[in-house]
Amino acid sequence: MDRKVGRASLKFERPPVIESSASVVGKKEGEGPLGSSFDKIEEDGMCGKKTWEEAESFMQQQACILALEKGKLKKEEIRYLFAGDLLGQLIATSFGAGNLEIPLFGLYGACSTIGEALCLSAMTVAGGFADRVLAVASSHFATAEKQFRFPLGYGNQRPFSSTWTVTGSGAFVVSDPERAKKGLAKITAITTGKATDIGAKDSMNMGAAMAPAAYSTIARHFMDFETDEKAFDRIITGDLGEVGRTVLLDFMKEDGHDLSQVHMDCGMEIFDKESQDTHAGGSGCGCAASTLSAYVLRKVVTGEWKKILFVPTGALLSTVSFNEGQTIPSIAHGVVIEHME
Amino acid sequence: MDRKVGRASLKFERPPVIESSASVVGKKEGEGPLGSSFDKIEEDGMCGKKTWEEAESFMQQQACILALEKGKLKKEEIRYLFAGDLLGQLIATSFGAGNLEIPLFGLYGACSTIGEALCLSAMTVAGGFADRVLAVASSHFATAEKQFRFPLGYGNQRPFSSTWTVTGSGAFVVSDPERAKKGLAKITAITTGKATDIGAKDSMNMGAAMAPAAYSTIARHFMDFETDEKAFDRIITGDLGEVGRTVLLDFMKEDGHDLSQVHMDCGMEIFDKESQDTHAGGSGCGCAASTLSAYVLRKVVTGEWKKILFVPTGALLSTVSFNEGQTIPSIAHGVVIEHME
Repeated sequence: MDRKVGRASLKFERPPVIESSASVVGKKEGEGPLGSSFDKIEEDGMCGKKTWEEAESFMQQQACILALEKGKLKKEEIRYLFAGDLLGQLIATSFGAGNLEIPLFGLYGACSTIGEALCLSAMTVAGGFADRVLAVASSHFATAEKQFRFPLGYGNQRPFSSTWTVTGSGAFVVSDPERAKKGLAKITAITTGKATDIGAKDSMNMGAAMAPAAYSTIARHFMDFETDEKAFDRIITGDLGEVGRTVLLDFMKEDGHDLSQVHMDCGMEIFDKESQDTHAGGSGCGCAASTLSAYVLRKVVTGEWKKILFVPTGALLSTVSFNEGQTIPSIAHGVVIEHME
Repeated sequence: MDRKVGRASLKFERPPVIESSASVVGKKEGEGPLGSSFDKIEEDGMCGKKTWEEAESFMQQQACILALEKGKLKKEEIRYLFAGDLLGQLIATSFGAGNLEIPLFGLYGACSTIGEALCLSAMTVAGGFADRVLAVASSHFATAEKQFRFPLGYGNQRPFSSTWTVTGSGAFVVSDPERAKKGLAKITAITTGKATDIGAKDSMNMGAAMAPAAYSTIARHFMDFETDEKAFDRIITGDLGEVGRTVLLDFMKEDGHDLSQVHMDCGMEIFDKESQDTHAGGSGCGCAASTLSAYVLRKVVTGEWKKILFVPTGALLSTVSFNEGQTIPSIAHGVVIEHME
């Protein structure tokens, strides 16, 4: 078995497949460039609920249910749920996907959470511990602003380096290749990230805080597999935004890697910067998760992209540590997703 | 392979071993009945740091470093870190064990986190994805009170059903049986919990909120393996405390299981209720983790206990959901730990 590769990567001999996926987003995301690709657009940011948190939980649960429906699967066929969100104590998950009564592993990797969930999902299936698992992550603009920044009613001005938290969720059924009814794409390898801290302190510039983690994980992946950017049709970060992308490209360039043609950032795709006033781009667990399901995965399914490195990034920001003057460490998890012939 | 058992359990053909473990606790825990068993007692609740959060991070990191030292291991020999704590966005972990530069999976399962970490650690090792991983969880009385309840200076009265969050951390090196230098005990099976919600709303009575989750996971384990309490020398919950224990025993009795002789709760062992004024018992991620390392594991190592079911429980409480009038869902993860001949 050549499963363990280098210092932080795994290669799957029998790659698990993504059997089904779904995305649910809010109104603003529905009005963006990818609007027509999402499975469901909630016109009401409250989803008819009493609180934003309940709305996020509802969307997360909807994404899971839709992913099951699209795969013609019952929830009883899912052995484990790998789920997370941005909120303290993962309440969007506890009251969201957690309600599905599937054995649950709660995960926190900030906006990288769907990467962490896909890594553990693939390991669980490849290890023979499950035929099918479900990976899901969500975020909501209003719950995140309330959690991390200012009350919305305060109407604070946002610098151009700031990102706009995506209201949405993406869910993925990851399955054993022989048990799956169909396979959309296969997960062939993963690279697990480390917490990376270069001393960033600006919560309004999360892209710059996260870029070193993206760099660390991509560079590690290249080293572990003795490969480079030429092996991929796209290297896709989650929510670096414009500022973070520039930093990542600069860091990679110093190592002799030119990512300018192959790099894509979900946060820069999901909104139209000019007309939607989202500044550096979209962010949040839901950004990478919903864009992967609605846009990226479809390109891999059709074969337009044969092989991608999906690297969602997370800024491990908390108001408590931030108010205590701490830095913002970050993390990124790499998932290699390939077209199935 | 008979790995998948029942609906939520796994049995390991080649059981991973706990190669080393360590516990670090605060002064109050050091003065309790298990005081002499902990590896390190921090007399200063601030650990010489500027904030409680930094102190918790320091203790968590110390527990990891001690576990490595006791096992004569270098951190480079650890492939993955499974870590978590109670704080929003896991800041104790981001600035604690996260600093060890080991590929990190951040976990949140409230006070059940060490159970979740041990489950995923065992799966990762048994799946052949790592020779060695590290599982760690921590809590701190002052960071938890600040996060979940009242400012300490306010000096609010605590009802008798309330628990006292343990200041401490427990860390475990989980290893491939053939690669481990030694084995303290083996992890032979796990049962993964579901989020369970019976509508509990009292944040000062977490034991009652968590008991249904403990019941759910223990009952599931019994069903999955067609076994019962007679198979175990102890069935050990994390921090149900006195109130939660009573509820659990009642629930199990209705199913025809008498757990009164075999059940033990880490929260009821770590403090002396009378002299330490801790009411229903200890709680927090650090309670189950440090007690497992300092007390429970030693009984298994000596063979006084041949087989235990370790079931740490977590109340998925957040001030946001609580203040919005939501219930407190809970979760529990079961880990079967056996003596090695």
